[in-house]
Amino acid sequence: MDTRTIEIKNVHETDGDLYVLETDNDIPFSIQRIFYIQNVPANKKRGGHASKTSDFVYICLRGKVKVCIDNGIRQQFFLLEKANHALYLPKETWMEFYEFSEDALLLTLASEKYEENDYFNNYEEFVREKQ
Amino acid sequence: MDTRTIEIKNVHETDGDLYVLETDNDIPFSIQRIFYIQNVPANKKRGGHASKTSDFVYICLRGKVKVCIDNGIRQQFFLLEKANHALYLPKETWMEFYEFSEDALLLTLASEKYEENDYFNNYEEFVREKQ
Repeated sequence: MDTRTIEIKNVHETDGDLYVLETDNDIPFSIQRIFYIQNVPANKKRGGHASKTSDFVYICLRGKVKVCIDNGIRQQFFLLEKANHALYLPKETWMEFYEFSEDALLLTLASEKYEENDYFNNYEEFVREKQ
Repeated sequence: MDTRTIEIKNVHETDGDLYVLETDNDIPFSIQRIFYIQNVPANKKRGGHASKTSDFVYICLRGKVKVCIDNGIRQQFFLLEKANHALYLPKETWMEFYEFSEDALLLTLASEKYEENDYFNNYEEFVREKQ
């Protein structure tokens, strides 16, 4: 499955705004790990690697951030800035997040637990592997 | 397993603050559903029910909110206000969130998908069932 955006179901009532994602229906995996990042300085980047086994879903819950996605053949650029938009990334996709706004809060859902050896950290090696 | 707080692993570096939770290690279930709530007016409440089958983990990623937990025998009160604290709730626990701060962003991780019939919505019926 390719990189794609996911529209998150949301309900706006007088008692607040609710956003819901379910595995299988909205996310094509069962979530084994979540992590969130905040207070990233505007001149810093996050990511800069590719997982060999894990799919990811990214949601910028607050603020905004840009991301460059690379499958070894072509690059795509996305701006994440809405609590009702998620970005799905299959395994073996290089990603780099940049230009975080000061208030950005980026939530990540992962299909696998963390393994240090699971990551390509060298871009040339990653491209070689993919071709 | 009883209601309890979970300390979320966090890493603070010059490129931002990272918080991580994994199933089994930090959360005693595989996540089937996530939802998040924001813009809840200070005089409104959320929850006011109990799931028959789902465990939950709550994290207030931003701002603060209070919650009253009730297992049919005794009540507990918690203030959620830190991105590195989670509250674990087993199934069959009544919960009500209140006094949301204006900027509150409450993230919920659930062990089950949503089923309308899965919820006790009547407190007296819930207490009767638990005793």
